[in-house]
Amino acid sequence: MDITYQAECDIKRRLKQLRTYTSTPGKGVTRLPFSEEAKGAVAYLKAEMESAGLKTFVDLVGNVRGVLPAENVDAPTIIMGSHYDTVKSGGEYDGIAGVVCAVSVAELLAQSGIPRKYNLEIIAFNDEEGMMFGSGCLGSKALTGQIDRHYIEHLTDENGISIREWMLRWGSDPEKIDTLKLDMEKVKAFFEIHIEQGPVLDEKKYELGIVTGIVGLLRCMATIEGRADHAGTTPMSMRQDTINIASKVISRLDGLADREQNGTVATCGFIRAYPNAMNVIASKTEFTMDIRSISDDSVDRVQEEVWALLDEHTAKCGASCDVDIKLRQPAVRMSGELVERLAGKCREHDYKYMEMVSGAAHDAMVFADKVDTVMVFVPSRNGRSHCPEEHSEYADLAKAVQIVFDVMTDMMVE
Amino acid sequence: MDITYQAECDIKRRLKQLRTYTSTPGKGVTRLPFSEEAKGAVAYLKAEMESAGLKTFVDLVGNVRGVLPAENVDAPTIIMGSHYDTVKSGGEYDGIAGVVCAVSVAELLAQSGIPRKYNLEIIAFNDEEGMMFGSGCLGSKALTGQIDRHYIEHLTDENGISIREWMLRWGSDPEKIDTLKLDMEKVKAFFEIHIEQGPVLDEKKYELGIVTGIVGLLRCMATIEGRADHAGTTPMSMRQDTINIASKVISRLDGLADREQNGTVATCGFIRAYPNAMNVIASKTEFTMDIRSISDDSVDRVQEEVWALLDEHTAKCGASCDVDIKLRQPAVRMSGELVERLAGKCREHDYKYMEMVSGAAHDAMVFADKVDTVMVFVPSRNGRSHCPEEHSEYADLAKAVQIVFDVMTDMMVE
Repeated sequence: MDITYQAECDIKRRLKQLRTYTSTPGKGVTRLPFSEEAKGAVAYLKAEMESAGLKTFVDLVGNVRGVLPAENVDAPTIIMGSHYDTVKSGGEYDGIAGVVCAVSVAELLAQSGIPRKYNLEIIAFNDEEGMMFGSGCLGSKALTGQIDRHYIEHLTDENGISIREWMLRWGSDPEKIDTLKLDMEKVKAFFEIHIEQGPVLDEKKYELGIVTGIVGLLRCMATIEGRADHAGTTPMSMRQDTINIASKVISRLDGLADREQNGTVATCGFIRAYPNAMNVIASKTEFTMDIRSISDDSVDRVQEEVWALLDEHTAKCGASCDVDIKLRQPAVRMSGELVERLAGKCREHDYKYMEMVSGAAHDAMVFADKVDTVMVFVPSRNGRSHCPEEHSEYADLAKAVQIVFDVMTDMMVE
Repeated sequence: MDITYQAECDIKRRLKQLRTYTSTPGKGVTRLPFSEEAKGAVAYLKAEMESAGLKTFVDLVGNVRGVLPAENVDAPTIIMGSHYDTVKSGGEYDGIAGVVCAVSVAELLAQSGIPRKYNLEIIAFNDEEGMMFGSGCLGSKALTGQIDRHYIEHLTDENGISIREWMLRWGSDPEKIDTLKLDMEKVKAFFEIHIEQGPVLDEKKYELGIVTGIVGLLRCMATIEGRADHAGTTPMSMRQDTINIASKVISRLDGLADREQNGTVATCGFIRAYPNAMNVIASKTEFTMDIRSISDDSVDRVQEEVWALLDEHTAKCGASCDVDIKLRQPAVRMSGELVERLAGKCREHDYKYMEMVSGAAHDAMVFADKVDTVMVFVPSRNGRSHCPEEHSEYADLAKAVQIVFDVMTDMMVE
């Protein structure tokens, strides 16, 4: 059944409405968790889910949830969703496009009259981006039991207001946070459609990407301490030049990543030197490294090489170095069976697709080690994301809906 | 004649008084041009010069000048001096130590009763550091005819107040700026004693350095423009990572400088990246390079290599680069004859000395291409300078006075 025409119309209509829930009109979409704009989006999504035939509710942490029940309500549940929060001055597709796609899948399934072996739950997750509390995936972590009372008390926004306090303002009872956890035995699978947020599909002119895994990530901050000296009067051999040492490491990141030959990436995106004056040798330089790979061994190898380079170049001149690991999360694999089912549907519809790794984290990552999980990516024009220029085609989103709809239809009747 | 005991006592007494003329008591010496602290130092220096037997005056740009006349007042003049201004929260030696040493040389010559073939003029120069107006060597440049009405009108402090306005406040007539220029035909030589501001003499346990030249300098700001992309989702081959490109150049600076094998130094002291976020590939990176050598060819070669590296690494990924040259000044040579005379006096007194290049600019640099010029360096403890920890030994300063006194004594009677 070709449902792309209806899906494209619905996706377009809903996304055009949803982009109006922003605190920065004219400067991209800014919809922070628990904000007035979030409330607007939640009310709209709830209404649209209901009109799609779902039984809806908003849970304690602000996830908007809608259920299309199975014939036997005790049957396991297939979950499909993405997030409705955004970064500051972000685009109109990141997260929310996957939410409206999920609503379309449920709506089309409901309309199709196909008998349902499983419940289908559509979830618009709250706070995936981590803009408010420095973490992220609040909604999906709460449903998978990774958030407790301690967590919501101790994570605060920039004004020191905790998640707990925000839950109270939202009208929730934070004492009940533990009740959110889903029984994973009763979850059959997790689907997420999302924009790629990278340039690969657009560059290669693919219509869809089937995600086979989400990279593991090491994020750390290195601080090199040396000595401030006069840039003219200090011989090269008597320096502890921390910018130079940092550059000896940063300049190797691309080569180390390339050597792994599996799409491993390594980035220094932040650097700060002290005193940062053109005629003074820098006494201190801080820089970050963000290393990602679908192979945790690759992340480990790049890390080891980087540590060795830092040791070598600081030892050579008597400088010192400290590395603070900010985040270390292992790679996760998507369900091979679901990847193959989706790929098969692409071939049936003659969609140009590729299997690919996600270099960014998503709500799907939180579910992937607990339940069969899969993601579908749609192309991002020029790879742009997290900015007002972010753009994906409604037609591509509709194709993603088509293949997920097809796979679910199969699963519902098998 | 061993004059070091008296010289050391006088140097100590005068430096202890002069360090009190600071706007940052307890936090080093801050004596900006034309400030109240500068007025205090000027009045004190004038009085000390007079008590040393000199005829004094303060000139239009705030140089404090004292003359010990020759027997024939139409005779040429030997000039000796250094500067009395400081950086912000600097030390008690940079510049001012050379001024009090010069006063000692004149005083000891006056007391010695030796007949004088040349006039001796002691000058405490104003605004060598360039803290107020971004330039520097105001006092020495005015005397060598490098400053005109345009210059003093257009250079302003951070509040937009021009040198001209500051001259008016100081009680000078800026219209007469052109009258300051000395007749270089009538200048026999220029001597300057200064602290090394580097670690070489202290490290090698030398008591004095005889400066053979002052390095040429290229100072520039490179701006690399690339593209901001997601650090996770952008394959290494599709990046324009400006921090990485910058690091490929900066990491080579030490090797390029070392290859010249003549004390060439190259430094990146300043780096700034945009947006400077750990998970975003930097779209723009600015960094400075400061390249110095006694060989202008070495500066040129390092520059050419750096330009080639910038071209290579930006071209490889389609990024672009612009280099803004902030300062280019050629190396200057000291008088070989004066270097040899001073070195001979070191050997006579059994002072442990070395001939060396100055990696920093000084008032002497302004005179060096116009008149026979020489500098004597005294050790800086741990190479520290431009900070409250700056330290040199009064005894070493007295040794510098001794050898200059000896050479001048010889010149006065030859």
